[in-house]
Amino acid sequence: MIKINENFLKLEQSYLFSTIAKKVAAFQKENPDKKVIKLGIGDVTRPLPSVVIEAMKKAAEEQGSAETFRGYGPEQGYDFLREKIQKQDYFDRGIAIDIDEIFVSDGAKCDTGNIVDLFAEDNMVAITDPVYPVYRDTNLMSGRKKIIYMPSTAENHFNPDFPNEVPDIIYLCNPNNPTGTTMDREEVEKWVHYAKENKSIILYDSAYEAFVEDKNVPRSIFEIEGAKEVAIEFRSFSKTAGFTGMRCAYTIVPKQVKAYTEKGEAVFLNALWNRRQCTKFNGVSYIIQRGAEAIYSEEGQKQIQENIAYYKENAKIIREGLIKAGFTIYGGVDSPYIWLKVPEGLSSWEFFDELLEKANVVGTPGVGFGSCGEGYFRLTAFGTKENTIEAVKRIVEKYCQTR
Amino acid sequence: MIKINENFLKLEQSYLFSTIAKKVAAFQKENPDKKVIKLGIGDVTRPLPSVVIEAMKKAAEEQGSAETFRGYGPEQGYDFLREKIQKQDYFDRGIAIDIDEIFVSDGAKCDTGNIVDLFAEDNMVAITDPVYPVYRDTNLMSGRKKIIYMPSTAENHFNPDFPNEVPDIIYLCNPNNPTGTTMDREEVEKWVHYAKENKSIILYDSAYEAFVEDKNVPRSIFEIEGAKEVAIEFRSFSKTAGFTGMRCAYTIVPKQVKAYTEKGEAVFLNALWNRRQCTKFNGVSYIIQRGAEAIYSEEGQKQIQENIAYYKENAKIIREGLIKAGFTIYGGVDSPYIWLKVPEGLSSWEFFDELLEKANVVGTPGVGFGSCGEGYFRLTAFGTKENTIEAVKRIVEKYCQTR
Repeated sequence: MIKINENFLKLEQSYLFSTIAKKVAAFQKENPDKKVIKLGIGDVTRPLPSVVIEAMKKAAEEQGSAETFRGYGPEQGYDFLREKIQKQDYFDRGIAIDIDEIFVSDGAKCDTGNIVDLFAEDNMVAITDPVYPVYRDTNLMSGRKKIIYMPSTAENHFNPDFPNEVPDIIYLCNPNNPTGTTMDREEVEKWVHYAKENKSIILYDSAYEAFVEDKNVPRSIFEIEGAKEVAIEFRSFSKTAGFTGMRCAYTIVPKQVKAYTEKGEAVFLNALWNRRQCTKFNGVSYIIQRGAEAIYSEEGQKQIQENIAYYKENAKIIREGLIKAGFTIYGGVDSPYIWLKVPEGLSSWEFFDELLEKANVVGTPGVGFGSCGEGYFRLTAFGTKENTIEAVKRIVEKYCQTR
Repeated sequence: MIKINENFLKLEQSYLFSTIAKKVAAFQKENPDKKVIKLGIGDVTRPLPSVVIEAMKKAAEEQGSAETFRGYGPEQGYDFLREKIQKQDYFDRGIAIDIDEIFVSDGAKCDTGNIVDLFAEDNMVAITDPVYPVYRDTNLMSGRKKIIYMPSTAENHFNPDFPNEVPDIIYLCNPNNPTGTTMDREEVEKWVHYAKENKSIILYDSAYEAFVEDKNVPRSIFEIEGAKEVAIEFRSFSKTAGFTGMRCAYTIVPKQVKAYTEKGEAVFLNALWNRRQCTKFNGVSYIIQRGAEAIYSEEGQKQIQENIAYYKENAKIIREGLIKAGFTIYGGVDSPYIWLKVPEGLSSWEFFDELLEKANVVGTPGVGFGSCGEGYFRLTAFGTKENTIEAVKRIVEKYCQTR
């Protein structure tokens, strides 16, 4: 008799965004004349830079001719892309990374999910609360029972202390999703030292690094001395270059980083991840990789910086508007996410309903990211500027009057 | 202390294709004047149909404009593609499939590998020997210890009998990789009945279905009555439409197919796979899905049929040449793979060396796919016609003279 992996039954059904969608649909049905503005999900709205479009069209053309056609590519990604990543994302920022430490993939979500394949089931895992749900769910799915939730709230400036028990796997997301806050160099250093002392590993998600301007906030964990021995870093073109619909990301697994057998023998994770990817993955589309390569050109860099500046301007508009309306807010400076304290006496979901009804604006209730997100609310800067301005105007009008 | 998943250490290192590459490189170094022809790996050489190129260029253009830009797509694939799959690959062939039974992905390799996430570790798994290594390795990686290898040789016409112990998970690949042979309707029916009787599940890989002409060979397992209760089907655009470098495939998880908890409660796998994909996958690139959609147009169908006919003509050339040269051969009729018996007294690898030296042709030693592949050898029809003719000419010349 075929038996299921019963760990799947332990997962909460992911009702968050479907509940939001249902509430919005119901509101729209009753109020067909109202224009609802959605600042809920983390999807981008700016089109792709023209250099990316041109590169993809050229690559598509190549696939139509026998002389230039390319079939299976390397599972780890084409060198033309890996070399650009190596030079511009690392070398030029003072970090030495080898080509074969770079694994191009179809998404940071996939990689942060798939990486758990490499680890034993009885490792203890530490994640923040609130958290990007993929970290939690993929560990639950693969049978990990020992999960430490580290409360991440205004009281600890969204940078939780070391937990009481020592975790083997530590997830850090910097800049953070959902709180939009950052850890500075000293804080990341603290975790690197902790991981080294305890033979733990840090899974470092820096999908939002392109939004960092503060010089004290590292854009890569490998800026920290010794991090290559204890950290794996996840990067994405989704937020950096608007690639959410393109599917391209990469993961750095340094050659030094290791884990251990039950008997204490060290095993290098670079080879293990390579084996995993070669067996269960077949590389990213050639056309998409050519598109990703194009963002590293001078013009490409200019164009993606313009898009990031556009979203950061949105973040500023939201921040300033919310402050004006009397809200306490966090994040949104080196991040596209604004995390706000909901008005006294309301739950995350109550505030969601109120905001939808009063201002016709949709955001995400913080409790959807974990119980410590209760009392908070996430807005994103990824909307259009017009919608962002309009949404903030409505919030200011409604809340300045009523509170 | 962070501990690895020690199951990775049980995997054989995948030396097959790297050993081949090294041998070929060494031969070329010693014989720089010889033109080596590679009929080893299963990668295609024909360019993509022009309708696919045009569709991808148009989709790329859309991504460059704010009005038509698309960010995150559905994890399960866009409906424009799923509807085409539903109609042309199933409805039009008399099979009713619901849209939400279709999961578009970035490769059949990924799906056949990832599907094991859904099942308990102690299920008993049956695979053929020889076999596409992904089935074996992904089960070993995830800790499954009970693996039945079903010998698949000329003696049983490459269609092994039911094993002595009843497996919970049965992998069938039809047309088969590596043997290039097929199971007819009656044989597939036999397995469907067996799976129903035993509450087993069939993981049915039909990546090569586009090569089937024989009316007695099913192109989908869902042609068999009752199969929707016990089978999951994997399909790919790689071999059908030359998409090896594009990365697009799909998997059908019928709503009826179920597995059980330890207590015997039935759980539907469609919802479980959906949960898995939503958590660990983020959909296929919009541009690539538009390319895949284009193959379903009248012109697209015509163009992919031309490519398949081209490869089938290659297969015929190889078959006829090998027969002329005195080889016993299998497959290559409803499949791009020709499986040949190596000359008496030689091992797979000895024949590899001999063929490389005598005819400067590269193939794949059967033993690389499992111990029962010893004494066999795989050639693929995916080369160019010119190279295929030249390779076969050399084989005929050398082997007609010397044996």
